Amino acid sequence: MSTKTLHSLPADRYFSPDPQQKRTALDLYAGIAGLPIVSPHGHVDPALFSDPDQRFGNPVELLIQPDHYIVRMMASQGIPHARVLAGDNPRQIWQLFADHFHLFRATPSGMWLVHELEAVFGVVERLDGGSAQRIYDQIEAALASPDYSPRRLFDRLNIEVLATTDPATSTLEHHQAIRRSGWHGRIIPTFRPDGVANLDTPAWRENIDALSAVSGIDVVDYVSYIEALEQRRSAFKALGATAVDFSPASPATEWLTGEEANALFGRALAGSATPSDATRFAAHMVCELARMSVDDGLVLQLHPGVYRNHSSQVFARFGADRGFDIPVAVEFTRNLRPLLERFGHHPNLTMILFTLDESVYARELAPLAGAYPALRLGPPWWFHDSWNGMRRYFDQVMETAGIYNTAGFNDDTRAFLSIPARHDVWRRASADWLAGLVVRGMIDHRDAQTLACELAVGLARRAYRLSTNQ
Amino acid sequence: MSTKTLHSLPADRYFSPDPQQKRTALDLYAGIAGLPIVSPHGHVDPALFSDPDQRFGNPVELLIQPDHYIVRMMASQGIPHARVLAGDNPRQIWQLFADHFHLFRATPSGMWLVHELEAVFGVVERLDGGSAQRIYDQIEAALASPDYSPRRLFDRLNIEVLATTDPATSTLEHHQAIRRSGWHGRIIPTFRPDGVANLDTPAWRENIDALSAVSGIDVVDYVSYIEALEQRRSAFKALGATAVDFSPASPATEWLTGEEANALFGRALAGSATPSDATRFAAHMVCELARMSVDDGLVLQLHPGVYRNHSSQVFARFGADRGFDIPVAVEFTRNLRPLLERFGHHPNLTMILFTLDESVYARELAPLAGAYPALRLGPPWWFHDSWNGMRRYFDQVMETAGIYNTAGFNDDTRAFLSIPARHDVWRRASADWLAGLVVRGMIDHRDAQTLACELAVGLARRAYRLSTNQ
Amino acid sequence: MSTKTLHSLPADRYFSPDPQQKRTALDLYAGIAGLPIVSPHGHVDPALFSDPDQRFGNPVELLIQPDHYIVRMMASQGIPHARVLAGDNPRQIWQLFADHFHLFRATPSGMWLVHELEAVFGVVERLDGGSAQRIYDQIEAALASPDYSPRRLFDRLNIEVLATTDPATSTLEHHQAIRRSGWHGRIIPTFRPDGVANLDTPAWRENIDALSAVSGIDVVDYVSYIEALEQRRSAFKALGATAVDFSPASPATEWLTGEEANALFGRALAGSATPSDATRFAAHMVCELARMSVDDGLVLQLHPGVYRNHSSQVFARFGADRGFDIPVAVEFTRNLRPLLERFGHHPNLTMILFTLDESVYARELAPLAGAYPALRLGPPWWFHDSWNGMRRYFDQVMETAGIYNTAGFNDDTRAFLSIPARHDVWRRASADWLAGLVVRGMIDHRDAQTLACELAVGLARRAYRLSTNQ
Repeated sequence: MSTKTLHSLPADRYFSPDPQQKRTALDLYAGIAGLPIVSPHGHVDPALFSDPDQRFGNPVELLIQPDHYIVRMMASQGIPHARVLAGDNPRQIWQLFADHFHLFRATPSGMWLVHELEAVFGVVERLDGGSAQRIYDQIEAALASPDYSPRRLFDRLNIEVLATTDPATSTLEHHQAIRRSGWHGRIIPTFRPDGVANLDTPAWRENIDALSAVSGIDVVDYVSYIEALEQRRSAFKALGATAVDFSPASPATEWLTGEEANALFGRALAGSATPSDATRFAAHMVCELARMSVDDGLVLQLHPGVYRNHSSQVFARFGADRGFDIPVAVEFTRNLRPLLERFGHHPNLTMILFTLDESVYARELAPLAGAYPALRLGPPWWFHDSWNGMRRYFDQVMETAGIYNTAGFNDDTRAFLSIPARHDVWRRASADWLAGLVVRGMIDHRDAQTLACELAVGLARRAYRLSTNQ
Repeated sequence: MSTKTLHSLPADRYFSPDPQQKRTALDLYAGIAGLPIVSPHGHVDPALFSDPDQRFGNPVELLIQPDHYIVRMMASQGIPHARVLAGDNPRQIWQLFADHFHLFRATPSGMWLVHELEAVFGVVERLDGGSAQRIYDQIEAALASPDYSPRRLFDRLNIEVLATTDPATSTLEHHQAIRRSGWHGRIIPTFRPDGVANLDTPAWRENIDALSAVSGIDVVDYVSYIEALEQRRSAFKALGATAVDFSPASPATEWLTGEEANALFGRALAGSATPSDATRFAAHMVCELARMSVDDGLVLQLHPGVYRNHSSQVFARFGADRGFDIPVAVEFTRNLRPLLERFGHHPNLTMILFTLDESVYARELAPLAGAYPALRLGPPWWFHDSWNGMRRYFDQVMETAGIYNTAGFNDDTRAFLSIPARHDVWRRASADWLAGLVVRGMIDHRDAQTLACELAVGLARRAYRLSTNQ
Repeated sequence: MSTKTLHSLPADRYFSPDPQQKRTALDLYAGIAGLPIVSPHGHVDPALFSDPDQRFGNPVELLIQPDHYIVRMMASQGIPHARVLAGDNPRQIWQLFADHFHLFRATPSGMWLVHELEAVFGVVERLDGGSAQRIYDQIEAALASPDYSPRRLFDRLNIEVLATTDPATSTLEHHQAIRRSGWHGRIIPTFRPDGVANLDTPAWRENIDALSAVSGIDVVDYVSYIEALEQRRSAFKALGATAVDFSPASPATEWLTGEEANALFGRALAGSATPSDATRFAAHMVCELARMSVDDGLVLQLHPGVYRNHSSQVFARFGADRGFDIPVAVEFTRNLRPLLERFGHHPNLTMILFTLDESVYARELAPLAGAYPALRLGPPWWFHDSWNGMRRYFDQVMETAGIYNTAGFNDDTRAFLSIPARHDVWRRASADWLAGLVVRGMIDHRDAQTLACELAVGLARRAYRLSTNQ
């Protein structure tokens, strides 16, 4: 078709233009590009893999509607959520997206999608209004092929391990089904207690009932609540879980006494907990989760500092995770101290810290992780999971924390097919950063090769305790 | 003169030294260098243009005394304001400045001035103590020529539109005179309600009287106050205004009830408003101004987070805008929510946000602007209107906000003749940033050309609704 | 030995890889590499120089145990402090360090040590587990040579002046001994009042007794306390001191009345001061120290914003300065105002500000230092005394503050032998930054040469008033 405009992903994309640095970066990248993907934190639905015959939906259901980065960007330019999320005709929605694909120029979303289209679907035509329907056809045709089942793609994408994120109340039925099926893919759950540990969760009371039901422990007070959580952690661990993930509003930590915790929990059960109760309880639960991790060895991830569902209008009509979660400033130095005083030096604890407030990278997180053995720094999170976000992270974290106090990469995605694109950006960013150190004589090439492998897979395997066999 | 040291502005100044990136940047810059200047926000005095025979003063009145960047830098090195601002002999002041011009090395002020001297006055000799008087002569001679009238320079500088900033109480007489004169230059006012909306403005009561006088509406309570403001907005709009500019201490927003607003305003009229009243009233007025913008379509600019007149000694002796306004940290995510809950999705509202606290670029402003259709991000402001300030802005804003949620460039200057120098830095910074994306394979050359034009003129025209005919 | 892996420090290390920028940087660096070292702030023990026969301890006592960067990094990876600090066998500790030297890749600690080993001890073998004992032998042999006495090294390291940091209660006996000995090395004390001005210092009461004893003024109330401090400042000045250094928890400033100060000080003497008293007293003492500086001309350094001894377990077992001091956010604009209102324009005062919170560089510190004549900005401090920390400092500070409102470099080290390595990084960083401006046409080569000398020695000499003869 003579009117097609082709794009193609340059082999040296992202790398610094300086010829010497680029040569070094390409060499380092060549050593890690083919390594398997270790994905220790993300939000892929395990149901995709529980049934061998499970298939993806249409291109819009697969690529547009679940992607809050895409939905929010279109909303920001005046395209209502309803047209993207609730339209009847997926081809019309795809056309709308393609007509506005210029909005995503130079954004991670845009670059992931181009990578995904080319690497997964073989699309090399430039996406715009004119090519939209041809590309839709091409994706739709691919998805109809047996090669595009989630399980087949799991293998083709070279995934060594994929951790999902599952509420504490989950029955883990899909994880059980995956195990029962005898399939070889390593897909493991992650324990997420937010719905039962953040008292201001709208459905908290229902979640407590669900916790009772799934754990078989009647949650009637703080002690039974903790027992139920411990039962669930044990069940998660039995299905391969190595980690817990908690996202409190703030990284505050506080140890309530047993009496205080019980009284506060009693108020919550009675529906009379105050906002201040919720704040203190979350701070206490960070400590309690750390205490449990000391006991059972699950790694504790902390993702604080997000104002969730900032637009109540969007939340009311379209629910959570629609791009209207906005970061706020966070403080770690004072907030984490009560927890660290108790467990900061405990050899059983690994706690991985994340932030959307980059001002704490150099000021608080790197000094903390560079001192306490229990702490590791997670990779650039969410909005910062981008070429420049990674550059800033390397720049601001590594000199103080040291590379070995970081935790490698997380793709943190709901979009299964975008996993390779995201890891590829990280691997390229790592290679380019290390090449920059090599050409400045700050490390030698041999060290750089070692560190490139660490950043690609080694650090994540160790921080998340994934090296042990299931 | 054989002792002259010449400088000259390199054609490739500011650009990255990498040859491939520089070639690309030069090519992109060539496509935008000649575009007209769109100046949607600044502080040029409209009186310069109301009288066709208006002329600039001497070089010191023109270039030194009104420039708070220059006055503060000299003060910071122990040269009292009085010697710069109150000296009798402009040649002595110019000499003092030239003797200290090394203080401005590698600063935006220094680079703007060198550009301005060469591009506007043809000065190619290096400014220092030895050349000071020769250069003074050269500028003085130029200013005596009819080619150096403000109106002639307006044309020569290739300005498409110039927005001034005018208090709500302004009679807009100079804007009216410009219109009446039939001159073709497009100079438009901007509605600035600070003097009547910030209750802690020293002359607030007098300003209210002036508002009554100019609007013809006797401001006796909150309702008549709002009516008077609406009358003024209408008058500004009739003279071409497309925007409002408000600079509260903080970006807090709060909706007072009519009763609360009226009671509070009553205390202010009675001279008994408290500091807390002033804070709440400013927060309410941000909301009220947004409500008015929904009604009349004027774009709302917000410039918060400055501690004005930090040195009371300087303020008492030399007044405002003498370089002693110092930024403070700001918070947008929680503060803007009350306003955004009401109008964040309203199609009539465009609200352009500015910050002097760069830590909010990536953390708060880019995520907000990348979600709410009513929001756009203004360009790097004030201290950050510099080569590195622009680099940091592109770096921290664009991946999350997307280019199309930004508002192009503002020169924000009182110094009419520095306008081209400031836009030139922005255009070069844009071209170099885009070239960096091209050589990294993140966008293609065609996209880069489109985006360069958008950053130079397109985004500003649209964000400020300047494309409609007057 | 054929199994040795050699490393060597590349002559062009740290510099940008762009050939044009690197050539310029190398040229600028060549002009400053040989300049003497001006070290106006650090923590070297003056006792090293008071006795001509003083010698360093073994390699572990010299290089590992006093270095909190090294101790903390090993602790962060699970190597207990006790194994590093309290081991009996220095060769075993050295082996442990060498076995873990990969932890220091791309960190300033690692790069300083490699420089120090090569430049001071001639070690060119790569340090790792295999080479550890050979390198230990080599250092030990060097230390046995008369060339490695502290005084001989002071000359060999080309130090023009070295300021130590000494508590207000110090008898300054080592400084007196250095003077009495007639040795030519210029080593001067710095007045550090923290132990008597921060009321929450654990040994505050004992320190007050020591202050009485050393000053000969019986401290019984606020007036005698101030007299005793003034007596000590005078004694410090007599031994060459040009500066004071204070590290309050926050940069808050507040003027207490004489009555308030005396009442508060009385409570402290009586052991009944509250935490709020301590906070207010520190804020008052910043002002009082500035007032004293106006009187006696000593430069006032402020190092706020550190949460000291964050791990009480480490503090209890191993004392202060073990790597567990963690930065917190700071605010300068509002906090410094009470002091600046009184003395911000006073020609006698120079106040040098430091921060571990880089978000204030561009937002607060550069605008303040670019306005008030009494203020200068100190160099990147502590965690930010690194290649990237310096880059960020130049980037965020210089355009607004202007180079001449900065104070050159501090090595701020306890490790005498690391002084040249630290200054070398700064000089290379300065040269590379200036070269970046030259190749972008923002300054010319001649200016760059001047500025390189200013950054290396000139600014520090002037800011710290070191140019006057002793």
